[in-house]
Amino acid sequence: MTTAKRDTYTPDTLLSVAVQVFNERGYDGTSMEHLSRAAGISKSSIYHHVAGKEELLRRAVSRALDGLFGILDEEHARVGRAAERLEYVVRRMVEVLIAELPYVTLLLRVRGNTDTERWALERRRDFDHRVADLLKAAAADGDVRADIEVRLVTRLVFGMINSIVEWYRPDGRGMNEREVADAVVQLAFGGCARAPELSSAAPGPPPRTPAACGC
Amino acid sequence: MTTAKRDTYTPDTLLSVAVQVFNERGYDGTSMEHLSRAAGISKSSIYHHVAGKEELLRRAVSRALDGLFGILDEEHARVGRAAERLEYVVRRMVEVLIAELPYVTLLLRVRGNTDTERWALERRRDFDHRVADLLKAAAADGDVRADIEVRLVTRLVFGMINSIVEWYRPDGRGMNEREVADAVVQLAFGGCARAPELSSAAPGPPPRTPAACGC
Repeated sequence: MTTAKRDTYTPDTLLSVAVQVFNERGYDGTSMEHLSRAAGISKSSIYHHVAGKEELLRRAVSRALDGLFGILDEEHARVGRAAERLEYVVRRMVEVLIAELPYVTLLLRVRGNTDTERWALERRRDFDHRVADLLKAAAADGDVRADIEVRLVTRLVFGMINSIVEWYRPDGRGMNEREVADAVVQLAFGGCARAPELSSAAPGPPPRTPAACGC
Repeated sequence: MTTAKRDTYTPDTLLSVAVQVFNERGYDGTSMEHLSRAAGISKSSIYHHVAGKEELLRRAVSRALDGLFGILDEEHARVGRAAERLEYVVRRMVEVLIAELPYVTLLLRVRGNTDTERWALERRRDFDHRVADLLKAAAADGDVRADIEVRLVTRLVFGMINSIVEWYRPDGRGMNEREVADAVVQLAFGGCARAPELSSAAPGPPPRTPAACGC
């Protein structure tokens, strides 16, 4: 026989249980009954904390979105050459994704069946556009190849970063957040780097080090 | 009033309807009733073609897996420097993914709840290992940076390629398969390219062109 736990939840700890269930069963496939069983408290105890499962979803994806948008307010994302800011943002995206792994996982699986999901998708698109704008600015500065298709490259880089939720396990073994961030930055930016000029015969500005942002 | 269609399906055309429904509803969320409604034929007509939905899943993911493994048998994947074979395989993966978009989408969403799903996951892992082995061989040849972590880079490159199923729409507008393949190859291989040596003072082999495979 199982005994219902005394409700010692705070909104935050209840959220972390809900996010785990959403990620396992899918948001659509999760009922208040599932949440109640996973938390070990009654449905009415859950309703004491939140209006329903959509509020839990909104809080969870907000946490992921706040983490991502917060990056854009950081100094290194605002000040400096666009290419350097872009590299900083990409590195921080990996760090936020790993720090908030279950929340970002949920955000990336949102489908758009409810108002909250549609709002989350809209905010994700806003974020994508902000990053694409940085890539465009870096191209305008001459720091990235002129022949890249900004939307396509942005999508591929996001695809690479977002795939981390599929395989990264924060179990202490394997690679840490820093190694993953280094590898992403290396692949993404070296990937479309201008090769340093081998001849200095042609007039023009001195070759730029690809370390800043070769993309 | 809807009238049931006469069953003019072949196993292949029925498969293409089933794959669409699996991708929309998820394999777990699809019943024979859903398949019957989508195809416009009775359940018993479907059973005339296949033993059940798991057989449809097996046929669908087999088609994706056959496409992917087929790449490894192609001449350019078997003959030549490992780095060149790797670049060829990555390009062909993008092409197969786009040519077989609904089938590869389904393969990538398989979860492992049934024997067929576990078999598909096992085959996906085999394929991943074959590609990782090529990357290792390229590293042993000195064609890729010695400091890359093969498993991590393989995962990120797969993440980039697999993300294509999330946004590529074969609607004739936007980019074609060739442009997407070019961008993936450029990002993946330029990304860990050895920079050409600027000084020829140091003894050693002549710098290799990154075009072959800079990864």
